[in-house]
Amino acid sequence: MKLRISDRMSKPDFQGDFTARILAAAGDPSIISFAGGLPNPDSFPVKEMEAAVTKVLERDGVRALQYSNTEGYMPLRQFISDRYAKQGLDYAPTNIIITNGSQQALDMVSACLIDPGDEIVVEKPSYLAALQTFHLYYPKVLSVSLNEDGIDCDELEKTLSEHDPKFIYVIPSFQNPTGLTYTQAVRERAAEILRKSGIPVIEDNPYGELRFRGDGNVKTFAELLGEQVCELGTFSKIVAPGMRIGWIACKNPELYAKLVAYKSTMDLHTNIFGQMVLAEYLLDNDLDGQIEKIKKMYGEKAEKMMDCMSKDFPEGVTFTKPEGGMFIWATLPEGLTAVDVMEYAAKRGVAVCPGDPFYEEDRNVRTMRINYSNSSDENIEKGIKILGDALRELMNK
Amino acid sequence: MKLRISDRMSKPDFQGDFTARILAAAGDPSIISFAGGLPNPDSFPVKEMEAAVTKVLERDGVRALQYSNTEGYMPLRQFISDRYAKQGLDYAPTNIIITNGSQQALDMVSACLIDPGDEIVVEKPSYLAALQTFHLYYPKVLSVSLNEDGIDCDELEKTLSEHDPKFIYVIPSFQNPTGLTYTQAVRERAAEILRKSGIPVIEDNPYGELRFRGDGNVKTFAELLGEQVCELGTFSKIVAPGMRIGWIACKNPELYAKLVAYKSTMDLHTNIFGQMVLAEYLLDNDLDGQIEKIKKMYGEKAEKMMDCMSKDFPEGVTFTKPEGGMFIWATLPEGLTAVDVMEYAAKRGVAVCPGDPFYEEDRNVRTMRINYSNSSDENIEKGIKILGDALRELMNK
Repeated sequence: MKLRISDRMSKPDFQGDFTARILAAAGDPSIISFAGGLPNPDSFPVKEMEAAVTKVLERDGVRALQYSNTEGYMPLRQFISDRYAKQGLDYAPTNIIITNGSQQALDMVSACLIDPGDEIVVEKPSYLAALQTFHLYYPKVLSVSLNEDGIDCDELEKTLSEHDPKFIYVIPSFQNPTGLTYTQAVRERAAEILRKSGIPVIEDNPYGELRFRGDGNVKTFAELLGEQVCELGTFSKIVAPGMRIGWIACKNPELYAKLVAYKSTMDLHTNIFGQMVLAEYLLDNDLDGQIEKIKKMYGEKAEKMMDCMSKDFPEGVTFTKPEGGMFIWATLPEGLTAVDVMEYAAKRGVAVCPGDPFYEEDRNVRTMRINYSNSSDENIEKGIKILGDALRELMNK
Repeated sequence: MKLRISDRMSKPDFQGDFTARILAAAGDPSIISFAGGLPNPDSFPVKEMEAAVTKVLERDGVRALQYSNTEGYMPLRQFISDRYAKQGLDYAPTNIIITNGSQQALDMVSACLIDPGDEIVVEKPSYLAALQTFHLYYPKVLSVSLNEDGIDCDELEKTLSEHDPKFIYVIPSFQNPTGLTYTQAVRERAAEILRKSGIPVIEDNPYGELRFRGDGNVKTFAELLGEQVCELGTFSKIVAPGMRIGWIACKNPELYAKLVAYKSTMDLHTNIFGQMVLAEYLLDNDLDGQIEKIKKMYGEKAEKMMDCMSKDFPEGVTFTKPEGGMFIWATLPEGLTAVDVMEYAAKRGVAVCPGDPFYEEDRNVRTMRINYSNSSDENIEKGIKILGDALRELMNK
């Protein structure tokens, strides 16, 4: 066959297979995987979901199985709108588009905004699958450093004064991969800089509600900047990811219309069966209670993992102390690379995610992402012990 | 806000909003809609689906709600593989990727094969949402005429001798929009021409199993050309579309790997909840029986609609006589345009789909697509009567 793969899928820096490999490893029960970003299945409301399905199919079965509209199921959009209202955000249901997880939202935003050669701004490091999506559209990616307290505002200001990017993409709360959270002071200063620049702010907020420690009194960019922000959300981390249901909240009518037109061309609409079941579940159950349960669980897992790391990791390895979310970001001493550690640990049955794919350019970095949400306490102990031994062996080589 | 929409979403010929509008009209109960391509909800197996959900959630609830692998749920891929085997096609489960309906498959193929300026070949007319998807990638679209007996082989041969397209996209059975089906003779000659050219053949086959009249003894291009073909399938037309579950069958390992990597970047994976429920339904029920039920229903609807059209349409309007699928393609007498008819009929509460968006270049055409699968007999009578009156009035203007 005369097969000629497109340039976009032939680029050596396309790392789509990386995500696929992480998902595959996560499904292998013989591996202790700290590599993915999977929620803990003990938190899944299986029984409640069963009740919701039965209600939906008995009351409205035909609708749940037929084609539906591109924007999404209205009661679900209404639920999201009402929940935003409680946080002081006024997104109407008609400002919301239901997506196949927020991963699809990243593609929708990219397709509607990026022309080849356009500049965009991301955090350094940033979410690997976001970078992959952006790259399909041939942007010039400008990275702004992430400090312990959030994005580096001086660097942000300098970047925006020297460049004219199409948008900035940020994950201000319990960031993926670092687990870091912008302080309120950084949020306010960054908002001021961004307001001046006027560029669209794509705020990805999958973990924002999962704070288990520290000061929760921080504002989202959506609160600080209003219409300038496209807010991405998902039920993957607070209910369950298997249904692939996320959303974009966007108040700008021109961008909103383009996002809908693009999504209709991608897949007509998000599966309505899942949307209706999820909406029913949300209306009949206590989401806040569900989130409290997850926060308690993840807080304990994070504590456990940090304890094990303090005990089992050799001196010279440092790591972030997350106040929420699902990730710890470890930095290795000079001389080691995260890819070496990954390979060494993989042979011993432990999967971690090296930092490399989270950077636009840096390779053979010394940082790695470690997920704590989806492992048993026993596996955290065992896995961190193996990882600690692997680190020591590599350091003594 | 400094909003600058991408070129791809600013092009005046982007008609993504057209699809969104059709879906919205289809949901409006005050309109008799022949515009969409919706299956008849009376065929939906609601009770059986309820039984399947209960089994899945009780046996395997956590798996149905967790992240999953990009390629899709193995028992579902196995079912598709087994069904192909009964038709004499040897696609392994590992040749199959589950997609968000076959609409997503169109985007996946486009992204993996089309670079800006590349040539591709489509039928004239072709499926509107396929054309829209292709256009996102800036191809040069070459259209080959569709005759009553299938694609025009002389024109196809000439096109392939003068050009070097990346792929050809065809819907050989009960085509959307025309309802036409390639005869076996045309399939064989076209296959010969395509074999010589060696280019990938994207065969979209959503309606192939829905033959209610005529000679069913025709071969797919997948049967005639083997690995050269990417076969697109969907459960939308034979079970239910609401779950958005389709697939790509692709034997070429290089293309397969690219398709998986691209999909993982788009949305990680298709909703596993729906995949598992559907697989359970398929294993516990008689799909052939379900398809027989649909064929009988659509055969009767098509008959009814053709009767009404013969009776109520003015002389000079001709139409195709489908042997399967969901569509009739009507041609208006000179002097009328389908867009005028659409607008005139819309004011009287009947929606039809003008031919224009199904053509790469032609506008103000005299053809229109009329769907019969999703209307009650009463609405077919009433709607065709209104349409006939509208046509007569317009012709006498």
